[in-house]
Amino acid sequence: MIIDRLYEVVRRRGPVCVGLDPSPELLPPGLLRGRSLAHAFLAFNREIVDATLDIVACYKLQIAHYEALGVEGLAAYRDTLRYIRARGAIAIGDVKRGDIASTAQMYARAHFEGDFEADFLTLNPYLGFDSISPFLPYLKRGEKGLFILIRTSNPSAPEFQDLSCFSHHPSLITHHEKTRHPLYLRVAEAVAAWGEPFVGGCGYSLIGGVVGGTSREALVEIRKGFPSIFLLVPGYGAQGAGGRDVAAAFRDGNGAVVVAARAIIGAHRGKPDADRRFSEYARAAALAMREDICRWIR
Amino acid sequence: MIIDRLYEVVRRRGPVCVGLDPSPELLPPGLLRGRSLAHAFLAFNREIVDATLDIVACYKLQIAHYEALGVEGLAAYRDTLRYIRARGAIAIGDVKRGDIASTAQMYARAHFEGDFEADFLTLNPYLGFDSISPFLPYLKRGEKGLFILIRTSNPSAPEFQDLSCFSHHPSLITHHEKTRHPLYLRVAEAVAAWGEPFVGGCGYSLIGGVVGGTSREALVEIRKGFPSIFLLVPGYGAQGAGGRDVAAAFRDGNGAVVVAARAIIGAHRGKPDADRRFSEYARAAALAMREDICRWIR
Repeated sequence: MIIDRLYEVVRRRGPVCVGLDPSPELLPPGLLRGRSLAHAFLAFNREIVDATLDIVACYKLQIAHYEALGVEGLAAYRDTLRYIRARGAIAIGDVKRGDIASTAQMYARAHFEGDFEADFLTLNPYLGFDSISPFLPYLKRGEKGLFILIRTSNPSAPEFQDLSCFSHHPSLITHHEKTRHPLYLRVAEAVAAWGEPFVGGCGYSLIGGVVGGTSREALVEIRKGFPSIFLLVPGYGAQGAGGRDVAAAFRDGNGAVVVAARAIIGAHRGKPDADRRFSEYARAAALAMREDICRWIR
Repeated sequence: MIIDRLYEVVRRRGPVCVGLDPSPELLPPGLLRGRSLAHAFLAFNREIVDATLDIVACYKLQIAHYEALGVEGLAAYRDTLRYIRARGAIAIGDVKRGDIASTAQMYARAHFEGDFEADFLTLNPYLGFDSISPFLPYLKRGEKGLFILIRTSNPSAPEFQDLSCFSHHPSLITHHEKTRHPLYLRVAEAVAAWGEPFVGGCGYSLIGGVVGGTSREALVEIRKGFPSIFLLVPGYGAQGAGGRDVAAAFRDGNGAVVVAARAIIGAHRGKPDADRRFSEYARAAALAMREDICRWIR
């Protein structure tokens, strides 16, 4: 199962997930000469992958960065995913889709097969189980996994995710029923329940969750309360979380990957030899990040 | 302002929004001969637009149907949007994106300019105001609008959207504070507040909401409680809502558009002359739907 593969790779190479989220401002200027922006994205990504393959757990692509370049950008998204997977590494499509079942089926087709095939996808839970279930046939074969948004890393995450909730809905009447809980814990409960049939040998489910490193309290609660949810943790570096913050996502040094984009792929900025050596700077930043996290989790 | 244009077009042509969500199963077989699927989508969409332009309010494209065909499908998405807008009609990009601010900025760039430029976009509120604010500079110029998911039309919508909530968060301390409300009403409150600076001459804001026609109670509550929210109402036809159900979305015959996809663009199915006359069937279905709704709202 792909979750066992991810678990194993975290054990061997550490929990760093490289966010391949290029932007015109972030690319070394030399890479842009004589290439379209989309081709520069692809060239950049390939070099970063080559330079980090042996020291990171996986790669996450935020599709918005490619969508912003239109059709050509999405060709670079497709080609980057193919490159990562051809090199034997795990690719997460950070698409955060969430829609009614007939639409979700189209998204599953788009991102679990065909041009944009990834190993894991991120999804948004607002529409409930309908919006998740069309992805499950792919999970049944063990080859694909999901990360559902539980508690995000952005400053306005509390606005709805932290609202204190009671349940009306019969499917959520649980032992917690008499007490109030923030919405994100309701979502975590649902994610754990949906993922129950998909727990791999490693003890984690093919249905994981996204919990931002900027909310230590949520990480502690969810890691403790939902032992089978593998966590994808954004927010490290540019968004403010450090190794100590994200450590709460782990159990025995596993069970989570921590994403950094700008902190790794932008490590070359301001260096005089950025054009030639950007991927070396990325590797050094990924190693430093691994060190920073592993100090707290092992 | 684009919302005043939409209001005016609803007044003149009625509130039908055609969902241009083609799929291989739904296309007339003749259209597929000698064409790629993506080219067939585009040819199909153009004929439907030509046949309905004078009797509908706008068009909504569910991007998942195009993403499912990969890069080539997204070229058909781009070209369909361009065709609709070149013909002077209003196009809604149903993308339901929702992400942290730096990513939302990329999505705004992707869908309010460049290849995938639409007049309105749908967004998911789960991440709070951060995920909306990067779209607002486009609204300030009056040219673009948003529809934020409030209460969706799918069977599992109640799972989270109907949870009964209290607020912790200072921005949500309102006159409702002492009482419990379903999450979707909290979202509606936020949508109304975000949209306040963008109310057009017609009395509706550039920030509208999505409320499914399958939940009459939510429609009634939101239409009554939030008079400035223009509503995008999915769920008509294939999903089960009828004219009487969606009538609750309107005030004085305006303030909402009702989407149907399969009921209109699939009206030719099973007809012997579907290949030649599919767009006539679509027109007839759109007219019947307009009739069905207008009977209840005027």
